Amino acid sequence: MGLIDYFRSAAGPNKGSASVAKERLRILVAHDRAARDRPFYLPKLQEEIVAVIRKYVAVDNDAVSVNYEQEDSQEILEVNIVLPESPP
Amino acid sequence: MGLIDYFRSAAGPNKGSASVAKERLRILVAHDRAARDRPFYLPKLQEEIVAVIRKYVAVDNDAVSVNYEQEDSQEILEVNIVLPESPP
Repeated sequence: MGLIDYFRSAAGPNKGSASVAKERLRILVAHDRAARDRPFYLPKLQEEIVAVIRKYVAVDNDAVSVNYEQEDSQEILEVNIVLPESPP
Repeated sequence: MGLIDYFRSAAGPNKGSASVAKERLRILVAHDRAARDRPFYLPKLQEEIVAVIRKYVAVDNDAVSVNYEQEDSQEILEVNIVLPESPP
């Protein structure tokens, strides 16, 4: 299963209709290092990515959840943002 | 399987050792819209995300591959960047 198919299936059963309960952004960044002496930098990158997103849509601080994992030669950053509902 | 496990397994068999052939960044952004009138904006966001990454690591233009898909209420952006090898 390709990554895009994974994301599409992870969107849940009502993906097909506009009745998706919440508007949201899911961001995933994986850094595969070629050597152990290469720096990890995703935690710093994360703040700047959220700052870029704020140029396009309002983002409440408490609507951002971050998950960061680091293991051997790989670091993975996952940012989930629940976006504010459109004004009535 | 959570997204992070997916990414980890997608890194390939030699994930555990520092002998990962190439250093690379894989970025995935999924936007689930709550209503059809909400704008899609990931293609514009993509250029700014690559610009942020360039603050941390050198990125050749031809080392960036982009895949964008849009369907019903969801748009998905995938950016793969092969990073330059560390100087000997």
